[in-house]
Amino acid sequence: MLAEIVPAVLQEYGAAARARLFQYLPAREPRRFLYDLVAEYPQRGGRGFRPSLCIATARAFGCPPEDALDTAASIELLHNAMLVHDDIEDESERRRGKPTLHTTHGIPIAINVGDMLGLLGLRPLLANFRNLGPRLALRILEETERMASETAEGQAMELGWRHENATGVRESDYLEMVLKKTCWLGMIHPVRVGAMIATFDSIDPDAFIRFGFFLGAAFQIQDDLLNLTGDENDYGKELGGDIHEGKRTMMLIRLFEEGTAEERERLGRLLALPRVERTREEITWVRERMDHYGCIEYARQVAQGLAGAASHECSLLFGALPDSRDKRFLEALPRWVIERA
Amino acid sequence: MLAEIVPAVLQEYGAAARARLFQYLPAREPRRFLYDLVAEYPQRGGRGFRPSLCIATARAFGCPPEDALDTAASIELLHNAMLVHDDIEDESERRRGKPTLHTTHGIPIAINVGDMLGLLGLRPLLANFRNLGPRLALRILEETERMASETAEGQAMELGWRHENATGVRESDYLEMVLKKTCWLGMIHPVRVGAMIATFDSIDPDAFIRFGFFLGAAFQIQDDLLNLTGDENDYGKELGGDIHEGKRTMMLIRLFEEGTAEERERLGRLLALPRVERTREEITWVRERMDHYGCIEYARQVAQGLAGAASHECSLLFGALPDSRDKRFLEALPRWVIERA
Repeated sequence: MLAEIVPAVLQEYGAAARARLFQYLPAREPRRFLYDLVAEYPQRGGRGFRPSLCIATARAFGCPPEDALDTAASIELLHNAMLVHDDIEDESERRRGKPTLHTTHGIPIAINVGDMLGLLGLRPLLANFRNLGPRLALRILEETERMASETAEGQAMELGWRHENATGVRESDYLEMVLKKTCWLGMIHPVRVGAMIATFDSIDPDAFIRFGFFLGAAFQIQDDLLNLTGDENDYGKELGGDIHEGKRTMMLIRLFEEGTAEERERLGRLLALPRVERTREEITWVRERMDHYGCIEYARQVAQGLAGAASHECSLLFGALPDSRDKRFLEALPRWVIERA
Repeated sequence: MLAEIVPAVLQEYGAAARARLFQYLPAREPRRFLYDLVAEYPQRGGRGFRPSLCIATARAFGCPPEDALDTAASIELLHNAMLVHDDIEDESERRRGKPTLHTTHGIPIAINVGDMLGLLGLRPLLANFRNLGPRLALRILEETERMASETAEGQAMELGWRHENATGVRESDYLEMVLKKTCWLGMIHPVRVGAMIATFDSIDPDAFIRFGFFLGAAFQIQDDLLNLTGDENDYGKELGGDIHEGKRTMMLIRLFEEGTAEERERLGRLLALPRVERTREEITWVRERMDHYGCIEYARQVAQGLAGAASHECSLLFGALPDSRDKRFLEALPRWVIERA
């Protein structure tokens, strides 16, 4: 049952949010270097995890799904906006199984497309003023600004580490960065605004931060594990690409902590190189040392602990709500995020 | 008098808007790769033309300046956000007399700083909900989203031309691009929202489009003329940098129209080269051909015609208002934009 409910709900709500999202994409000039490209990442699909989480939370709290649909579409648009800029910032080559936008159209055009996607993400939130009333619509807008600021702060932390070739990043720094960069947009925000819409802003939104953080951190670690151990076709990005990009992951931080002084130095030198000069041999060596020190197994255990904590928070937040498919979906998420392939 | 009122008002209102703007810049972590850099362009100054235009219009219509101050600060923040991204997109090396942000900190960090500046530009508009009431605040937000979308469309047009090494850009294409990329943020939007605030959204905002377009197009042509003929120290960007960047200006479009087939071909080849391979000799040749065909004089005359048209619109829009320093400032702008050095 667990195996079925999450994909089923994601498919249903993801499709509903995507259908609404496409209503916000303008079909007009300039097409070739703007609106055609704005539609590119949304058309490639994606799981629709974030908008589904928003819709399911709103429904679990007894809200008609229509009330959450524009906000869910906004979340997915903003997620796509951030992907376009992140792909440039992280020098990623592939996204959802195809080349990233800046590799096909250049950085200048991709930056502008990301900016436009961010503006389009604002439009459903302006529509909320008509449909949900000014008080609730304003609160959702404020929440969205907060979420996007948290994301930019998390991104700044990670980019700073890479820019300086930081080798002293600790697990607590990593988790703070993940809280900001992954959890706010991915989990905290969708659940908060979903509950806000359903309860007319009468619920304490901060109650959802812990749940979103535990769930999101487990999600991120699993994502990074899949980058090392997954199937390239399923995954849609280059395998081992994170090591190549010099991304600070739980596994890399663990390797810095467990490795010998000599190994730490070799790792530091590798990360200080320009990306193109990091050879396949060196990346294979990093991967092999991670296995040697059990870094992957360690990260897997941390993710499991976080998923357990998310489960506990889940029962505190949603336990008293009447049984529903949406409630069961939310309860199934912690296990799903660490078991998905 | 004309020579004095514009700088005096710009100085006064620019300083007021900047003071308000700085209240919105967070003094917290992460500083080094985010909030310190977010403050960088605003701290370098700038004329404060856009926020001053907003405040002056609001006052000319009889509004207390405080009501327009947050909106003016938002305009300046969004202007700075766009400068950061534009500088990457246009590969500009200098901004306000110093190196551009991406040349000192790299493209990834600069993209993120621009995104954060855009979010900070949203905050004063959220404050408007408390201070101006939800109806007017929502209209200003909608106007801002429209303005930013127009700007991104204009940027897409210009980036598309550069990406394709377009050689068939006509004067009408150029003016449409300038309407979107320069005039909306620079002139139309500040005047529209200024009048909207003063009249509680009871004035037709579309009446200001013509004035803003004529004024902004004259402004842009003058800006491009200064890039060719100005003083590098006054100007703060590299002189002749537009030719180097391959920017489609009125002068370059005129040269394409007036030059021989052979000259057009040489110009097309030059623009097709990567920026770094455009030699000083070739750029000097372009400049010399522009002189030969009177392209600079031609553009100067177009700018003068546009300034005259802006003056005419100005009297239609503001003529019936009681005399005030703000009204005189607005009336002095058309001459000022083409006479400033």
